[in-house]
Amino acid sequence: MTTPEAREKAVLEAVRKRRERVNEAIPEELPIQRPERLYEASRYLLDAGGKRLRPTVLLTTAEALADVEPLSTDYREFPTLDGERAEPRSADSSSGSPRDTIDIMDAAVSVEVIQSFTLIHDDIMDDDDLRRGVPAVHKEYDLETAILAGDTLYSKAFEIMLETGAKPERAVEALEVLATTCTKICEGQSLDVTFENRVDVSPEEYLEMVEQKTAVLYAASACLPAILLGADDETIDALYGYGLDIGRAFQIQDDVLDLTVPSEKLGKQRGSDLVENKQTLITVHARDQGVDIEGLIDTNDVDAVTEAEIDDAVAELETAGSISYANETAQELVEQGKARLEVLPDNEARDLLCDIADYLIERGY
Amino acid sequence: MTTPEAREKAVLEAVRKRRERVNEAIPEELPIQRPERLYEASRYLLDAGGKRLRPTVLLTTAEALADVEPLSTDYREFPTLDGERAEPRSADSSSGSPRDTIDIMDAAVSVEVIQSFTLIHDDIMDDDDLRRGVPAVHKEYDLETAILAGDTLYSKAFEIMLETGAKPERAVEALEVLATTCTKICEGQSLDVTFENRVDVSPEEYLEMVEQKTAVLYAASACLPAILLGADDETIDALYGYGLDIGRAFQIQDDVLDLTVPSEKLGKQRGSDLVENKQTLITVHARDQGVDIEGLIDTNDVDAVTEAEIDDAVAELETAGSISYANETAQELVEQGKARLEVLPDNEARDLLCDIADYLIERGY
Repeated sequence: MTTPEAREKAVLEAVRKRRERVNEAIPEELPIQRPERLYEASRYLLDAGGKRLRPTVLLTTAEALADVEPLSTDYREFPTLDGERAEPRSADSSSGSPRDTIDIMDAAVSVEVIQSFTLIHDDIMDDDDLRRGVPAVHKEYDLETAILAGDTLYSKAFEIMLETGAKPERAVEALEVLATTCTKICEGQSLDVTFENRVDVSPEEYLEMVEQKTAVLYAASACLPAILLGADDETIDALYGYGLDIGRAFQIQDDVLDLTVPSEKLGKQRGSDLVENKQTLITVHARDQGVDIEGLIDTNDVDAVTEAEIDDAVAELETAGSISYANETAQELVEQGKARLEVLPDNEARDLLCDIADYLIERGY
Repeated sequence: MTTPEAREKAVLEAVRKRRERVNEAIPEELPIQRPERLYEASRYLLDAGGKRLRPTVLLTTAEALADVEPLSTDYREFPTLDGERAEPRSADSSSGSPRDTIDIMDAAVSVEVIQSFTLIHDDIMDDDDLRRGVPAVHKEYDLETAILAGDTLYSKAFEIMLETGAKPERAVEALEVLATTCTKICEGQSLDVTFENRVDVSPEEYLEMVEQKTAVLYAASACLPAILLGADDETIDALYGYGLDIGRAFQIQDDVLDLTVPSEKLGKQRGSDLVENKQTLITVHARDQGVDIEGLIDTNDVDAVTEAEIDDAVAELETAGSISYANETAQELVEQGKARLEVLPDNEARDLLCDIADYLIERGY
């Protein structure tokens, strides 16, 4: 039995090694070109860091499917699952010879680019000043440039996903997943905004919102390699489900951490979700238990709240069993997600996908 | 020889008939669904009207390629150019039988949806209050909703383009055109913003900006049916060129109309481009001729400018030959674009594409 500490160390190391490769690929796929200011703004948040969890899930799923030793393969020439050779993209393709590999790194970069686009536009919508320790794009540049940078990343993600070299029928399916994922993210973000003005959101509604806003991009990350490498529909569906489960667990854990991690470590005021009346699984559950959520914190200003007020609010949520409820729900989702990985060959990469799932709810920040 | 008046009437009638079909298809492709406020905002500008010039170019090009009598065909089951039958999209497709038609209306709706997305985001960037006689989406709703509505339309356009039923290799090529077109529109918009702070923009730079910001969507509209119906590369390239030519001519004519059409007819202050220091082919040419463009109008406030000031400025631009230069450039582009249509069969739809080209620079508003 792996201890959580050993697992966290192993996961962080695995993520770090893939992150390095992703970080090399990003400037290759998104070079700073004319008009430079637009591309600099588009790259600003990507270059500011990020764990690259979604690309890591994507690359590791590809390794599990192809049954290769982790990190032993060139992600730019990754073996497909069929012995059958794919046809070249077109007659005037640079290489005339048939390929039986695809550029799975393109798919990994594409989902990270989508993630970056959504963050840039979300920061405008929430008027957040900071992201990843640097100014938000609309603060570092301006509103116009930030909208345009997000829009540029949006279409670039589709362009990059079209460059994997996968067979056309697989490329079309991958593009469908990417497009419907983006639509669902917008729908989830819209629901989230609507929920801020409602006091009757049910746990089911909250989980639906989280599924659309956050989990679908994990689901896309997990199922895209299956589509592009030529796995069967059962495998594609199981991996999509794994991504939905761990993505929801990830968001629930984020909500818990907002209440339980000291502000210094969190990089923002602890309990800011409560102060800003943001719905979380915790508040939705507590309200069901009769807790007066709106009355927990008097101020709506994160700069005015005291640690003592937050402590009292957290204690009340604990008494109502709401934090335990969130922890248990996340745990169940992670177990459900891991069980879905049975469709994969039993190998080191599959174990890593299980560990990533556990890590998402064991992580301290 | 058709008179401009007879041609305008014929073009407007042809556009109107296709617009009716496009207007029927839009709610079918973009139904108001949950979350309703998001989809209502996404449909708001589309429902407010618009000439549907780009979908008209797309549908008419399809008719010319397929050599069918205009408006005689169901755009939802449009014949491809190959006798060879296309394969069904996937094994679990609703219809198991092979198709040799595609839904070209989906492609037409997709380009109109892209156009609508760019207008919603442009209006935020320019902080314009009105569009098509109704409040801009960020005024009717709010900034958050307008950003999200644009983002939703963006991915919906890709989803809709993926529903034509075209063979996968053609669908992939169509998606590539759509994605690169969106990227270029963003690049063009970014250049346009940059140009506002420059006094040394050359006519070539201006035309490059217009090509990216405006003309590429006409180019996509003209070449997408060729790709989806299975035309050869020469035809695809020629139609792309036609779209680029007439799209640039369209924008130049817009710039001329801003100076020459009475405010009442224009629906906004005549000469507003001059007041707001917007670069046009006219100002770029005039500056080359030594005209002090920044000194033409004293105010930067469209509400403060007088008709007499605009008249004087227009007279100076006329003396410099700049308005004639813009008219001649647009005329040359239209002639060049029409010549490219020689690749099409000689039929009524091709004649209409020529007439549309002429109309774009003969129109009074």
